[in-house]
Amino acid sequence: MPKYHGELDAVLRALADPTRRAIVERLAKSPAVVSELAAPFSMALPSLMQHLRVLESAGLVTSHKIGRVRTVSLRPGALDVLHLWLGEMRTPAEQQADRLGIHLTRTASKET
Amino acid sequence: MPKYHGELDAVLRALADPTRRAIVERLAKSPAVVSELAAPFSMALPSLMQHLRVLESAGLVTSHKIGRVRTVSLRPGALDVLHLWLGEMRTPAEQQADRLGIHLTRTASKET
Repeated sequence: MPKYHGELDAVLRALADPTRRAIVERLAKSPAVVSELAAPFSMALPSLMQHLRVLESAGLVTSHKIGRVRTVSLRPGALDVLHLWLGEMRTPAEQQADRLGIHLTRTASKET
Repeated sequence: MPKYHGELDAVLRALADPTRRAIVERLAKSPAVVSELAAPFSMALPSLMQHLRVLESAGLVTSHKIGRVRTVSLRPGALDVLHLWLGEMRTPAEQQADRLGIHLTRTASKET
């Protein structure tokens, strides 16, 4: 079991919900204020805030408040644990294909 | 919303459970028969079979039966939708870093 297992668990549970995933997809483009995030969902603000809390406690988003406006951002490197885990899930055949791909890229670069 | 959204949804829901994730981690090493998969978990066989059904319907694993022995494998490319989605979630700053990394790798290859 990987060391980052607890973090990965929180990230996957957060992303298993389509609304939370849609929020992450929106924030990958740019930070947004809460009202902007709420707009595409026909959802009461308390429900949206609940989703944001789950995303924040999973380390996926951060937010800061200036005056009455709260801006939410995707945390840089937030999805790194998932990248890491996916890398470990490569089957032996896929790892071999990865190495071949790297070799071919390097060879092609040298030839040009 | 990406086109592969339904598939991604099933994959993330399947992986949000730690037992199912542990099964995927085991299968990434090699295919296994059901009794091998059950061994590390103090779990009744019907519960394990239920987890395997969820993984199978999410397209993460396949299984085949020879005689009385059922062998389960990780489906090649099973996690591709997740790779794809993660690629789309790269923030503009991360995408810029990716391009710089590719450029530096190519430059380094040419110099050696």
